[in-house]
Amino acid sequence: MAKRILVLNGPNLNLLGTREPGVYGVATLRDIEQSCKALAVELGLTLDFRQTNSEGELVTWIQDARLTSDAIVINPAAYSHTSVAVHDALKAIGLPVVEVHLSNIHQRESFRHHSYVSLVATGVICGLGPSGYTLALRALAEQLQ
Amino acid sequence: MAKRILVLNGPNLNLLGTREPGVYGVATLRDIEQSCKALAVELGLTLDFRQTNSEGELVTWIQDARLTSDAIVINPAAYSHTSVAVHDALKAIGLPVVEVHLSNIHQRESFRHHSYVSLVATGVICGLGPSGYTLALRALAEQLQ
Amino acid sequence: MAKRILVLNGPNLNLLGTREPGVYGVATLRDIEQSCKALAVELGLTLDFRQTNSEGELVTWIQDARLTSDAIVINPAAYSHTSVAVHDALKAIGLPVVEVHLSNIHQRESFRHHSYVSLVATGVICGLGPSGYTLALRALAEQLQ
Amino acid sequence: MAKRILVLNGPNLNLLGTREPGVYGVATLRDIEQSCKALAVELGLTLDFRQTNSEGELVTWIQDARLTSDAIVINPAAYSHTSVAVHDALKAIGLPVVEVHLSNIHQRESFRHHSYVSLVATGVICGLGPSGYTLALRALAEQLQ
Amino acid sequence: MAKRILVLNGPNLNLLGTREPGVYGVATLRDIEQSCKALAVELGLTLDFRQTNSEGELVTWIQDARLTSDAIVINPAAYSHTSVAVHDALKAIGLPVVEVHLSNIHQRESFRHHSYVSLVATGVICGLGPSGYTLALRALAEQLQ
Amino acid sequence: MAKRILVLNGPNLNLLGTREPGVYGVATLRDIEQSCKALAVELGLTLDFRQTNSEGELVTWIQDARLTSDAIVINPAAYSHTSVAVHDALKAIGLPVVEVHLSNIHQRESFRHHSYVSLVATGVICGLGPSGYTLALRALAEQLQ
Amino acid sequence: MAKRILVLNGPNLNLLGTREPGVYGVATLRDIEQSCKALAVELGLTLDFRQTNSEGELVTWIQDARLTSDAIVINPAAYSHTSVAVHDALKAIGLPVVEVHLSNIHQRESFRHHSYVSLVATGVICGLGPSGYTLALRALAEQLQ
Amino acid sequence: MAKRILVLNGPNLNLLGTREPGVYGVATLRDIEQSCKALAVELGLTLDFRQTNSEGELVTWIQDARLTSDAIVINPAAYSHTSVAVHDALKAIGLPVVEVHLSNIHQRESFRHHSYVSLVATGVICGLGPSGYTLALRALAEQLQ
Amino acid sequence: MAKRILVLNGPNLNLLGTREPGVYGVATLRDIEQSCKALAVELGLTLDFRQTNSEGELVTWIQDARLTSDAIVINPAAYSHTSVAVHDALKAIGLPVVEVHLSNIHQRESFRHHSYVSLVATGVICGLGPSGYTLALRALAEQLQ
Amino acid sequence: MAKRILVLNGPNLNLLGTREPGVYGVATLRDIEQSCKALAVELGLTLDFRQTNSEGELVTWIQDARLTSDAIVINPAAYSHTSVAVHDALKAIGLPVVEVHLSNIHQRESFRHHSYVSLVATGVICGLGPSGYTLALRALAEQLQ
Amino acid sequence: MAKRILVLNGPNLNLLGTREPGVYGVATLRDIEQSCKALAVELGLTLDFRQTNSEGELVTWIQDARLTSDAIVINPAAYSHTSVAVHDALKAIGLPVVEVHLSNIHQRESFRHHSYVSLVATGVICGLGPSGYTLALRALAEQLQ
Amino acid sequence: MAKRILVLNGPNLNLLGTREPGVYGVATLRDIEQSCKALAVELGLTLDFRQTNSEGELVTWIQDARLTSDAIVINPAAYSHTSVAVHDALKAIGLPVVEVHLSNIHQRESFRHHSYVSLVATGVICGLGPSGYTLALRALAEQLQ
Repeated sequence: MAKRILVLNGPNLNLLGTREPGVYGVATLRDIEQSCKALAVELGLTLDFRQTNSEGELVTWIQDARLTSDAIVINPAAYSHTSVAVHDALKAIGLPVVEVHLSNIHQRESFRHHSYVSLVATGVICGLGPSGYTLALRALAEQLQ
Repeated sequence: MAKRILVLNGPNLNLLGTREPGVYGVATLRDIEQSCKALAVELGLTLDFRQTNSEGELVTWIQDARLTSDAIVINPAAYSHTSVAVHDALKAIGLPVVEVHLSNIHQRESFRHHSYVSLVATGVICGLGPSGYTLALRALAEQLQ
Repeated sequence: MAKRILVLNGPNLNLLGTREPGVYGVATLRDIEQSCKALAVELGLTLDFRQTNSEGELVTWIQDARLTSDAIVINPAAYSHTSVAVHDALKAIGLPVVEVHLSNIHQRESFRHHSYVSLVATGVICGLGPSGYTLALRALAEQLQ
Repeated sequence: MAKRILVLNGPNLNLLGTREPGVYGVATLRDIEQSCKALAVELGLTLDFRQTNSEGELVTWIQDARLTSDAIVINPAAYSHTSVAVHDALKAIGLPVVEVHLSNIHQRESFRHHSYVSLVATGVICGLGPSGYTLALRALAEQLQ
Repeated sequence: MAKRILVLNGPNLNLLGTREPGVYGVATLRDIEQSCKALAVELGLTLDFRQTNSEGELVTWIQDARLTSDAIVINPAAYSHTSVAVHDALKAIGLPVVEVHLSNIHQRESFRHHSYVSLVATGVICGLGPSGYTLALRALAEQLQ
Repeated sequence: MAKRILVLNGPNLNLLGTREPGVYGVATLRDIEQSCKALAVELGLTLDFRQTNSEGELVTWIQDARLTSDAIVINPAAYSHTSVAVHDALKAIGLPVVEVHLSNIHQRESFRHHSYVSLVATGVICGLGPSGYTLALRALAEQLQ
Repeated sequence: MAKRILVLNGPNLNLLGTREPGVYGVATLRDIEQSCKALAVELGLTLDFRQTNSEGELVTWIQDARLTSDAIVINPAAYSHTSVAVHDALKAIGLPVVEVHLSNIHQRESFRHHSYVSLVATGVICGLGPSGYTLALRALAEQLQ
Repeated sequence: MAKRILVLNGPNLNLLGTREPGVYGVATLRDIEQSCKALAVELGLTLDFRQTNSEGELVTWIQDARLTSDAIVINPAAYSHTSVAVHDALKAIGLPVVEVHLSNIHQRESFRHHSYVSLVATGVICGLGPSGYTLALRALAEQLQ
Repeated sequence: MAKRILVLNGPNLNLLGTREPGVYGVATLRDIEQSCKALAVELGLTLDFRQTNSEGELVTWIQDARLTSDAIVINPAAYSHTSVAVHDALKAIGLPVVEVHLSNIHQRESFRHHSYVSLVATGVICGLGPSGYTLALRALAEQLQ
Repeated sequence: MAKRILVLNGPNLNLLGTREPGVYGVATLRDIEQSCKALAVELGLTLDFRQTNSEGELVTWIQDARLTSDAIVINPAAYSHTSVAVHDALKAIGLPVVEVHLSNIHQRESFRHHSYVSLVATGVICGLGPSGYTLALRALAEQLQ
Repeated sequence: MAKRILVLNGPNLNLLGTREPGVYGVATLRDIEQSCKALAVELGLTLDFRQTNSEGELVTWIQDARLTSDAIVINPAAYSHTSVAVHDALKAIGLPVVEVHLSNIHQRESFRHHSYVSLVATGVICGLGPSGYTLALRALAEQLQ
Repeated sequence: MAKRILVLNGPNLNLLGTREPGVYGVATLRDIEQSCKALAVELGLTLDFRQTNSEGELVTWIQDARLTSDAIVINPAAYSHTSVAVHDALKAIGLPVVEVHLSNIHQRESFRHHSYVSLVATGVICGLGPSGYTLALRALAEQLQ
């Protein structure tokens, strides 16, 4: 049966393509979703792709994944750095998780250098732009085999 | 008239019993609610028992307690460590508050050692599992007499 | 055409006038809104005045301002100190922003000394009570000319 | 057979009722001992209640508990914050331990925010005044069943 | 009787308009003085406007204000960050004080993030350029009524 | 013409497969080289795959890449955390660089949380085991097109 | 009636005159006691002069002073830097206290720069050798008038 | 020949008696000068008593003492905490120095806990009010014999 | 004449063999004493072997060694990390001192990484179990020749 | 036309030759001035050589250099470490600046390791004694060509 | 069969006897090698004794020990404090390791207080001069039996 | 006899002229060598000018200088900030050393603000570009006379 991947996007990622293109590039979140879906077909995965500005909703979506998904790709954006709640949710459900950041967070403000999500993620990919998402899908596809 | 206690539970506590039982035990939040309600009857208290993953909703519930409750038992979970908003709400309403943690937070990751809620709570109970809730009810029952 | 100002208020500001009047004064948020609206008429501005306890809603309102407002006055309250998401939203939309605090945050607890919003705001006004809002409107009116 | 509880009190607790009543309340240590003994009868526990100003004596009493007690309630007072020796003794004997503080130590000087005892105690109760002791007895009675 | 406001300017502000215009703008200190004086007339205030490079002279001027002024607007410039003496003088005289910075000091070098003056000022305005001075006058005019 | 990728491995990676397999897995460095070479053929890349225990040699190899390579994949191992010299070499040559770590360094000792290489790398992949290398090749292949 | 002064000396002060004379001088503790007693006669004070190596005994002596003394001169030696228990005892009894150090502790190892006793003492004298004791007696004689 | 003592007072001490009497007491600097002069006569010392708000002037006065004084009593006030220049001047001239603070600086804001002057003074007296000055004179009289 | 070695053991070492054998091994303190005495005979040393839980008693024993011993072997246990008094006593007597820890303290909790005793000991041996004591004897025997 | 160099000396440098010769050497400031003037003639520079103990005067002299000098050599002495005002003045005028220290400040007290002036100086020379001044002149002569 | 011990010496130890004899003593590395070899014969050990200034070579020698040695004595000198690579190599090979320092590193510069090697060594001996090496051999001989 | 100067260059300095010319300028290391050699002739010095990427080789070259050189000019580049081994080698040989940096390291990343070499160098020159080398030669020529 096709493995199900939940792709979660945190706050302000709905602005991608318009927000600080020098930092985040010109691709929109819709562009990224389409690249992911194209690759998912190729890899035999099903994909659920979402975005929210709400920490609580992000927590709830992660909790729901216990029943509906086999693995998670998450770009927690600002909540990477401030949300113990997201950390706890990911730890509680115990699924494989790949954390993705479009920019290289180690080259930005110091408050972006620490991620609560990295403490529970299987792996982390940052600085590779939208390719980070598709690389994450490949990594999970390989791991879920 | 029976004193009214609001028991508030923060993010991921709805997963209790399934989430990291080695840390949090096997009792579910429903089990805890029932223990609390049984003791409330014995102590002559009325109880309103809730859980949310949303920081904003937690803030609003605390604000509402000014009109509807005489005291609060709160397990803020992850928001203990990150929410100044919950801190401010508790400080604003001025009710007696007992903060409860199932696990002994001082023996876990360093980011759990500080709680914004402890700065405004009347008292704190941690590490005693579900009993922490019923001990908190006893403490408030005594104080509200 | 009249410049449009969005005035945003963060968590617990709906309690103003009742919450710690020694710190925050006796004016209610409604009082402040009315002072702002009176001055807006005088300055030829239109005003949208809101309050929320939810970080995610605050982020969404800021995002929406790209299309509906010319500048923002924001009292982020507790989220000043904890929200990278609000910081990112303000940075993304690129409008003039004046941050307002009723109290002088530098004389309070150390966790209130740092504001993520100050890192992206045009200017900051604190400690001047409700006048901070009207001064912010004057500053933006002047800048938007 | 009745479970035996050792209740240990650290330095200056012999001054209770006279020392800073605004912080510690008006109950004397004798009052607390009597409340504890009354509850112990009710819960079917036997109680040994002691106080010392000496770190070394506190260590020795804890060591002795291996042979004479089933659990410990300890208010280490000042030694909470400075005594690795007390920490080591509690860790060595491996009995259930509830740490009690009359005041909420998180709202006092920063040097009281860290407790070496919390690192080895089963649970911690603070800020609930003399009730902290009787709540601790209840928690241990429940755990020892 | 007209309220008397003392406007004090710290070191290097005599260079305004020539010094780093990208940071401080093109207005000279004389331009700012004239804007202030124009507004003072409108608000019914009398104004004494001064600049010095000397910490000791700044302290003495503040001390003298006890007898000659009703409130102070101060842009302490570099001494904001290093002068306990200015802090002590302002605290000693007990007049209303509004601290003004032309630039948003929270977006500059970390040594500019802390101000000893903010610890004793009534309010702080930063990042709003020369308007900060006139806003400060408005705030004080309102407070002195 | 085929793009040339230099794959560099730092100290102790020659022990892979034997060294702490719980942390680093059972694949040997030879296994990883072969996976990389297989994928390189598929992607039309040529590959130079090396390992050294010497910081100075690593610096020299990076310098040489200016003339012989189009991009670098580097697993700097221990030198990630201690070598400003490797950082400087990578910055000097200005080629695209993907930093790879087999384990998730954010979940290990605190001295592994900071990487001097991340400050100059295009992107970073960690925690995905040997797949990290092949994902890095894919990312560079895409970027070099 | 003659005012009663308790002069307390902490650990290792019994070695004075033999221990590191370059730091502490050649006077013995007996010499200091005699100077103090001579001055006490002159000032109309009665004196109780003691030394102990035990933190617990020091705490007990301080507690006893509530009934037997009007003020305390204390050279807590090593316990200045490590004893919260001594701090608490001094705070509990509420008598005037002058803390004395023979050497200037600010010029020694950094762990001697902080004193828990200074946080509760009326005043502190350091670096003036045995004269520190007699100056402390003079200060207390003046204050107790 | 009579020993000559220079008594130096730093910024804002000219306000003594009016400035924060709860912290600094009601005695004026003139009162202190007179007490000092009375004791100087008794001890056979000559006294030069000065105050300045200027760091540079304080440095110059200290330098001049090489030729005109045998010892210094200094209350550096705010410059204790910020002036390396005063530190350097005192170190350069090599006279005996007693540092005096009216209040107990260890019980005030943390920025007053460190004194550059204490690093070079012979001894330090704080918290004993105006008596600190006369005790300092006694200490120096004894040392200069 | 035979050199006299004082072997001192700090708090909780009387529990050796029963306390956390995974960390401290199964040998009792009596076993260690016998190994030491056997080696002492071989090396021509006389041995005084003691243990105490009291910091004050440890200080006094160290002081007494001035008259009765030629060197000290000390395992200060918990007091390594908290006792300035033990540090001062060792420094005062000026005998050769070898500090011994059974476990490798650098691999344990961070509060065990610093030892006040190491700052005054001749040498330090840790992590080598009971052999640490006999190695210390050998080192002192060699040094005392 | 001859380039004009302003050589500025901060507090206590007027004591050179008498002040701590072990640290600062035996040359007086006059000796240094003469060496500088001799070299200036050789290099075709004109020289203005000054010293002040006043931070404010130092700031004013730097400001004046905009009109009168082509470059600055500055030994800010104590103000290196404490004066943001001197930093700001140097930044404002935008001339080439070489900072000179007679001693190697990195080998002295930690508060001398940071210099606000180094953050704006072109270059820094320390530890080379009076030669530092003449080397600075050579460097500026070369740069001004 | 005779156990084989590899004795490794880090950078600058080839200078022993000439380098800072006040800190390191007058014995040369050759002297130490001969003492070790003499004792090895007595204990029935074979010895391989080496020194290098190269971190990479040290790593390689440690790796080689997997096949050629039963235990390691290492004096990593400067690399103790800076080399994660040496740490990783020692951890990877899993042999018993005793770390030796000639001087007591806890009494030297703060950057020598932390050793990456101590985090993986079985035991540590410091401050006992050349005897540290022979004591380490004895400890390993005992452990390898 | 001509004094012999060893000029040492650390990692990546072989790339000078090509590496980040905005930071390091366009002169190549060969250019610098030629300037140095020209000046050496003028000053009557002989020069040995070298570069290496290897920390170990740098250490060995420094050691060798004991026999072959009278003084050292060293630009340790990246090893300034990370190499205790280079620090130890320089300290061991006891020759005069001038440390040179082309750029002003105090204006770059914070990890470049600390230099282990500055702790043992006679003097430091930074920010003056290639001239720093020739100024260092002049300083040594003067000192070696």
